[in-house]
Amino acid sequence: MPDQLAPPSPATRLHDRYRGPVPGGEANWSPIIDSLLQHRSVRAYLPDPLSPGTTETLVAAAQSAATSSNLQTWSVVAVQDPARKARLAKLASNQKHIEQAPLFLLWIADLSRATRHGIAHGRPLASVDYIETFLIAVIDAAIASQNAVVAAESLGLGTVYIGAIRNQPVEVAAELGLPAGATAVFGLCVGHPDPAHPAAVKPRLPQAAVLHHERYDATDEPAHIAEYDAHLQSFQIEQVMKPQGWSDLVLARMAGLEGMTGRHALRDALHALGFPLR
Amino acid sequence: MPDQLAPPSPATRLHDRYRGPVPGGEANWSPIIDSLLQHRSVRAYLPDPLSPGTTETLVAAAQSAATSSNLQTWSVVAVQDPARKARLAKLASNQKHIEQAPLFLLWIADLSRATRHGIAHGRPLASVDYIETFLIAVIDAAIASQNAVVAAESLGLGTVYIGAIRNQPVEVAAELGLPAGATAVFGLCVGHPDPAHPAAVKPRLPQAAVLHHERYDATDEPAHIAEYDAHLQSFQIEQVMKPQGWSDLVLARMAGLEGMTGRHALRDALHALGFPLR
Repeated sequence: MPDQLAPPSPATRLHDRYRGPVPGGEANWSPIIDSLLQHRSVRAYLPDPLSPGTTETLVAAAQSAATSSNLQTWSVVAVQDPARKARLAKLASNQKHIEQAPLFLLWIADLSRATRHGIAHGRPLASVDYIETFLIAVIDAAIASQNAVVAAESLGLGTVYIGAIRNQPVEVAAELGLPAGATAVFGLCVGHPDPAHPAAVKPRLPQAAVLHHERYDATDEPAHIAEYDAHLQSFQIEQVMKPQGWSDLVLARMAGLEGMTGRHALRDALHALGFPLR
Repeated sequence: MPDQLAPPSPATRLHDRYRGPVPGGEANWSPIIDSLLQHRSVRAYLPDPLSPGTTETLVAAAQSAATSSNLQTWSVVAVQDPARKARLAKLASNQKHIEQAPLFLLWIADLSRATRHGIAHGRPLASVDYIETFLIAVIDAAIASQNAVVAAESLGLGTVYIGAIRNQPVEVAAELGLPAGATAVFGLCVGHPDPAHPAAVKPRLPQAAVLHHERYDATDEPAHIAEYDAHLQSFQIEQVMKPQGWSDLVLARMAGLEGMTGRHALRDALHALGFPLR
């Protein structure tokens, strides 16, 4: 009777994430932390529509996140129209899950709302031209979207972020009718995970590689990376994926510009979209 | 007997956040969504230390968030030393809660780990010079930190983001011993909220101002902003704060450069810290 089994312990959750212990990490726990630890990106969805009101609930969670100085410099475009999803998928490396998921959320770094407001009140906003203000919008959009992810998962839904929406940002802005000073920073597929293609918890770098106390210290980094390479490859073999350690991933993805799938031109695109990035 | 009262309904939670209804938003709900809706930024902390292992648990939650191509281009520096917290507070507009909170987490956009790895393997990483790759790191750090916020709140802890850590990024990097290609994108205070100074749920812009369906549509924006100005001022009056609508906030904070508290120079600082931002 599986439903009478004890739920996995915190130590088990941590082991799933790290393939090793996290000393002390299990001492503080909550059902929410338990849920966060189980995150996995979902790339296979059922065609079932979302329950009415789901988008509004997710956006309420997103708007409940912190926002720099309460400026709320982000927006979100909820796309459900299959034809528009298909066009957006084409602009984002043809990722089939964009078409498959019933909801595709485009998270917008949006300085245009403040800009319109300033112009309407005869006060053009000097700060919007600066990279700092663009970063405020990007960070606020990311924090907000992550709340939507956590909310979606709590409803049994799956999500996956789509950074490839930055491959062709000018075309994406045209598709969404974005005004100057607004750009899609990433997409998010939302839907019912297809149980025929379950996603697994992917191991991460050992905490010691990421968490520093008081000052940054990379002394033992090569050993941490070697340990992680082994964990990641074990995971990939279990998942019947081609094994590739993090060491090789970084070189394959970051050494040349081809791994950027066009995004080496992002600065020019942002200029064209109304972000001078001073 | 307050513990026998029914908990606030989803509609009540939504009303607290928006000061108005969100049609359909209450149809899908979970304890996690209930918790997300109650977020508030905490700027007054008790001196009590955190329970051992708290940092490790929060970082496990953070590392469980999605990360672009699994590159994990972020790090976090956990600062607990009172003298270092005091120095960082001085670099971040003298915000007293940085000193007060027992834990100050600095979230680092960190391309240095990948860069070291590439150099060690004779493959310098061309992509790290581009603004796209910096954005990957910023977005990943923001998504991760928001998981830490959600985890902290589930343990009864409070948090507040500190964007002012970008006021003097070169000095912050020196304080934390950051290598080239690493910069603090924001801080996060974590601690036990001081019940003598409770924080309240701050209302946000109406959903209709932020959520667009299929295509961006700002038609009714001035009306949404006017509605929000009234809600925000009601909130501020309740909180015995000086009332200032969002309309005025945007102009005060964004029209001139003085509201940027030095961050108009961020691009130069990032260049100096090893981010060419091509």
